[in-house]
Amino acid sequence: MTENLHPQRTEIGQYGEFGLIDILTEQVKLQNASSKYGVGDDAAIMNFGDKDVLASTDILLEGIHFDLSYCPLKHLGYKAAVVNFSDIYAMNGRPTQLLVSIGISKRFSVEDVEELYQGIYMACQAYGVDLVGGDTSSSMTGLTLSLTILGEVEKDKAVKRSGAQQHDLICVSGNLGAAFMGLQLLEREKAIYKGEADFTPDFEGKEYLLERQLKPEARKDIVETLAKKGIVPTAMMDVSDGLSSELLHICKQSKCGCRVYEEKIPIDYQTAVLCEEMNMNLSTAALNGGEDYELLFTVPLAMHKLIEDWSDVKIIGHICPADEGCRLVSRDGNEFDIIAQGWKHLSGE
Amino acid sequence: MTENLHPQRTEIGQYGEFGLIDILTEQVKLQNASSKYGVGDDAAIMNFGDKDVLASTDILLEGIHFDLSYCPLKHLGYKAAVVNFSDIYAMNGRPTQLLVSIGISKRFSVEDVEELYQGIYMACQAYGVDLVGGDTSSSMTGLTLSLTILGEVEKDKAVKRSGAQQHDLICVSGNLGAAFMGLQLLEREKAIYKGEADFTPDFEGKEYLLERQLKPEARKDIVETLAKKGIVPTAMMDVSDGLSSELLHICKQSKCGCRVYEEKIPIDYQTAVLCEEMNMNLSTAALNGGEDYELLFTVPLAMHKLIEDWSDVKIIGHICPADEGCRLVSRDGNEFDIIAQGWKHLSGE
Repeated sequence: MTENLHPQRTEIGQYGEFGLIDILTEQVKLQNASSKYGVGDDAAIMNFGDKDVLASTDILLEGIHFDLSYCPLKHLGYKAAVVNFSDIYAMNGRPTQLLVSIGISKRFSVEDVEELYQGIYMACQAYGVDLVGGDTSSSMTGLTLSLTILGEVEKDKAVKRSGAQQHDLICVSGNLGAAFMGLQLLEREKAIYKGEADFTPDFEGKEYLLERQLKPEARKDIVETLAKKGIVPTAMMDVSDGLSSELLHICKQSKCGCRVYEEKIPIDYQTAVLCEEMNMNLSTAALNGGEDYELLFTVPLAMHKLIEDWSDVKIIGHICPADEGCRLVSRDGNEFDIIAQGWKHLSGE
Repeated sequence: MTENLHPQRTEIGQYGEFGLIDILTEQVKLQNASSKYGVGDDAAIMNFGDKDVLASTDILLEGIHFDLSYCPLKHLGYKAAVVNFSDIYAMNGRPTQLLVSIGISKRFSVEDVEELYQGIYMACQAYGVDLVGGDTSSSMTGLTLSLTILGEVEKDKAVKRSGAQQHDLICVSGNLGAAFMGLQLLEREKAIYKGEADFTPDFEGKEYLLERQLKPEARKDIVETLAKKGIVPTAMMDVSDGLSSELLHICKQSKCGCRVYEEKIPIDYQTAVLCEEMNMNLSTAALNGGEDYELLFTVPLAMHKLIEDWSDVKIIGHICPADEGCRLVSRDGNEFDIIAQGWKHLSGE
């Protein structure tokens, strides 16, 4: 559980910025017809014909978004890219071009950065995305990553958060809370570890939770199946901050309320077992955990049958008028206001 | 000369991420027809019809790229945006959409971040760019900025670094070395200052140098004039790292050599005066200084007359075969190899 840095160590200063970029990007081959020119100039060149273009960006800082003591650099690269792609799927689009900027301190070697990029390339390969640009800088303070993803969508088919209508069904893919419990598990083992040389963390039977935390996937398949089924959701977003937070975003931007049923929220068996073991509230993990990267979307009530037959998507509630509020209906029939778990880093909590 | 932070201080944690984004983006109004939807969803939505799309990204880290002890946050925001736009002009394009990510530590208040964004908005206004997205994060270590700019260009009219041909004229806009000397001046006054309460830095007669360093402009006008004159350069880039470095990029990517004449390099009077005063080599400042954000481009020899009549562009040399090398011809007729000034941050120098 020490920092997973590469055994061979080449100092970054040995290559300089342009040498480093050459090394990191020599394997890049453009895959998308819309990618005309990639790394190596002032800007990348794309042509999207008459498609609409989507763009989203994420910033990831060491000590805030990731902890290298249990997140290997390759996994970090993979996850950072996939999380970025997820924003494009959340708009009903297809990610096509990625730009990656990194700030790195002297603590990192060329091999470390190569490992990070290997993870990024694995994600690009898996999702058919071209790396077309970026920036590389030294840093005085650890690792900073900034990713910008471009994507395409049929003209006027992008799905925003603002289109949910009264009576719409609220749907979610996969299951929730697993990534959060994976993080709890990693934190627990890190706390036990405390530097013992022969320490072996206890992850048995909990591999799925670790994978959800360390190697999440974006729901490309859900967007493709939506297209096949001829469904254009009225609103959609990905679950990155937690179901509660995302439901509030959709309701606020669609000017509506919602009822979500606790018993309908899909939860994996391993998530439930670890919650029990760690004496944590299962619904809290599922509602506020975050980092699931599942898709949360709303469809007209008339599409009930189409969704019901889809094993990987669950209907968890429905949209109601704004003045009825955003509420969770518990197993015993009580209603609770859904509350956003905020952005705690800067509030001193 | 202390950190220029805003007198009123609202803690960022008081608003949370989404509250902060609301405050920062409430004034945004989309200006470009290609901007369909901006801030407020998983991704921005654009449509570029049959134009080509350009994308470029920059990362800026406190202590590496900027020093808040002499760079006010508003100036930092303006400069960061303009430098990013410059990459689009350097491709013969027009910047249209900007995404801004920031990482901020508790040292900064809401007012500080608003000041930073004021600078970014001023630049967006001046250059007709829409802010369409971004990400906001807390940071443990000062300020991190990452900007991604999208732009448009007529189909197949983007100008890369790789198209320079033998006999082409090498041209540069404006003048070189002033931004670098502005930085020398700021560093000198900072060294003299050392915390004296009634210290007044001595900038008289050197305002232009300060402006070039603290509030640089991108050469939108040059790209527009090129279009008016019907000139499509064979190769182009902006001078960010320094003339030497950029000449080597164009020559390497165009597989050619060059001759550049020292006496032809355009230098402002204030640059020359401060070099003299500080006992520095003027040509070194102009060749290796960087941050000028002027445009360096090559055109066919037949366009000599068109360029010669253009007061804001100077012909500084010509392209030659690769085996003749990349050389500077000094005032006394001697030839020197042009050497790239590297990326020193990580090499321990």
